[in-house]
Amino acid sequence: MDQTFSPLSPSPRLLLGPGPSQIAPRVLRACATPLLGYLDAEYLRMMDDVQTLLRMVMGTKNDWTMCVPGTGMAGMEAALVNVVEPGDQVLVCVAGAFGERMVDLATRMGGVVSRVDAEWGTMVQPEQVKEALKTLRPKVVCIVNAETSTGVLQPLAEIGKLAHEAGALFLVDCVTSLGGMPVNMDAMGVDVLYSGTQKCLGAPPSLAPISFSPAAVEVYRSRKTVVPSFYLDAGQIWRYWGPERGYHQTGMVNMLYALREALVMISEEGLEARFARHRQNQKALVAGAEAMGLELAVKDPALRLPSLTTILIPEGVDDATVRRNLINQYGIEIGSGMGKFAGKAWRVGLMGYASQRANVMLLLAALGDLLKNERVDEGLAAASAAYAAA
Amino acid sequence: MDQTFSPLSPSPRLLLGPGPSQIAPRVLRACATPLLGYLDAEYLRMMDDVQTLLRMVMGTKNDWTMCVPGTGMAGMEAALVNVVEPGDQVLVCVAGAFGERMVDLATRMGGVVSRVDAEWGTMVQPEQVKEALKTLRPKVVCIVNAETSTGVLQPLAEIGKLAHEAGALFLVDCVTSLGGMPVNMDAMGVDVLYSGTQKCLGAPPSLAPISFSPAAVEVYRSRKTVVPSFYLDAGQIWRYWGPERGYHQTGMVNMLYALREALVMISEEGLEARFARHRQNQKALVAGAEAMGLELAVKDPALRLPSLTTILIPEGVDDATVRRNLINQYGIEIGSGMGKFAGKAWRVGLMGYASQRANVMLLLAALGDLLKNERVDEGLAAASAAYAAA
Repeated sequence: MDQTFSPLSPSPRLLLGPGPSQIAPRVLRACATPLLGYLDAEYLRMMDDVQTLLRMVMGTKNDWTMCVPGTGMAGMEAALVNVVEPGDQVLVCVAGAFGERMVDLATRMGGVVSRVDAEWGTMVQPEQVKEALKTLRPKVVCIVNAETSTGVLQPLAEIGKLAHEAGALFLVDCVTSLGGMPVNMDAMGVDVLYSGTQKCLGAPPSLAPISFSPAAVEVYRSRKTVVPSFYLDAGQIWRYWGPERGYHQTGMVNMLYALREALVMISEEGLEARFARHRQNQKALVAGAEAMGLELAVKDPALRLPSLTTILIPEGVDDATVRRNLINQYGIEIGSGMGKFAGKAWRVGLMGYASQRANVMLLLAALGDLLKNERVDEGLAAASAAYAAA
Repeated sequence: MDQTFSPLSPSPRLLLGPGPSQIAPRVLRACATPLLGYLDAEYLRMMDDVQTLLRMVMGTKNDWTMCVPGTGMAGMEAALVNVVEPGDQVLVCVAGAFGERMVDLATRMGGVVSRVDAEWGTMVQPEQVKEALKTLRPKVVCIVNAETSTGVLQPLAEIGKLAHEAGALFLVDCVTSLGGMPVNMDAMGVDVLYSGTQKCLGAPPSLAPISFSPAAVEVYRSRKTVVPSFYLDAGQIWRYWGPERGYHQTGMVNMLYALREALVMISEEGLEARFARHRQNQKALVAGAEAMGLELAVKDPALRLPSLTTILIPEGVDDATVRRNLINQYGIEIGSGMGKFAGKAWRVGLMGYASQRANVMLLLAALGDLLKNERVDEGLAAASAAYAAA
């Protein structure tokens, strides 16, 4: 053809947005490893490794622990479509864009959806769920553990207990939490948990880890209707991941290599150390930002995610200009606000490999420069002090 | 955790099965390129490149040309679910496992499915479709262009014409044809075409290129019901691939890099040269196999795919033992038979980068060795003669 195409040579980026996150060199190298066939005995053993490691990171003993062949959004749809049949009651806790997305998806698949709402930047209170369950008998109660649109950490234990007391499954979105903070699936009574590879797990976007409790598998097995999707049918995906090793789709070989490598890195670092690192870097970022006079969108410190911080855009500052200059002058990507926070907040991700002291200090310095902030020295000192206090 | 995990170091493989196919080194390297954000201006330009190149390979001017974020199977489901609503009549031409899969999927989504069947190893005759259309008024006529389960090439032109005369959309699976033989979407009157990256396109398994004709887009826009899937909703995916550049899912950055690189390689090679290469190597393989006394499952030479050859397993030969020895002693993967051909045929893929003379000659020699075939010298000579005759 007449058109020519430039060599693949993207500009260097430091990815401090809501995902994809920065990828460790050894995980990138794993992506380029020559392929095995997707039914090769060596490949199947790697799938076993991934299952073992996912159970460790999720905190579960569930048999049905696997990867949906798609991004986190495929994980959300797979989680819902396997346990929700047309006409089923579904209760969704909504405190941001991904709670809203759950409502959309459950509605598309014919669920009769009720919702409990919380203000953006806050969490859903267990009392709200308790109140709703006085009149509803949902089959599933859904919630987002780490709202990527708001930066809020939603505790799970109490709401999970209420769901079970009402005879419902407890379905939780852990896209922005898994690998960056404890999720403790079994201890929290979570029946369906899904995530994505491209955030705190530190692998490229591609796969959606998912796990179903025995109760959720039973709900799946007792369906009156066939799952309307073949691609996202958990029983079909399990045919491949489970002992049958049957064909469902052609495994995403390179992406599984990368996920396995990222999970091995997690096991080497240790969960406790990894979670502490995420928390430490977020605390330093928050200390620095606040010392520079920047305000956070999540007012309650206890509700702030270790992996994602929402910073309110200061009065008079042009959102797009700052983000463009961050990219062009520093190669740093941060996220724009989403939904109700569009134009009002920035989303700063410190996820997986990106959660590093150097990145925190550089971002504070860069924001200080671009915002012509006069207290950048105080910001850097406060962040540094946060590390010293650790 | 107590368990340790071995370094990622898979045994070398020559992938001559039904996919994934062998990946060129420069495409593998593209997989390991550091990530851009999925809304980075540089990344969006790469998506534009991929669209341009896909239109070239597909032979289409369709606006709605994009990638479903999943494997070829996600492409099949996306193709159907966007144009089939519950209660819609669907006519599926079935001559192998992937035609059967289309029946399953269209049924799951509530389609009223009729079928036209052909024996495995043969093609569906236009007369059969003509006959069926005397009594049916389907919204969509579906067919597989290259049946990966049988190795049969299904011509499209006449059946496409019949579909249009009946007022139906023409939906075609090009998973094993795109990039290895002409598909000429617009000229053949195809309204919905999907494929996978992991076969003749020469990229890793991950994405499903798809294209919708203006008529198909109109059918999508005129739906009475919302698409029951969000992840596979073409309008939502187009929000990201089209001018809006809205968020639908986190783009599979590394896999798009790889697909772009593989497509650039196709544009550099040229379609005609690439198709001739696929045909040439398949002819040599067939000449060699037949000279060794092996029989092909597809009797009519005109119906044999350039990308996939089905070889009948000789009487008295143990299928699994031969394939295991091919892997263990030669590092060569070929495919087992599928469906009605399970245990009866092997599937040999010469797709994309794997379609090379050295691979053909090595496979013939290896099969000769493992089958203790006394005519391997004749086989190699026949293959060599096929190259000399080109």
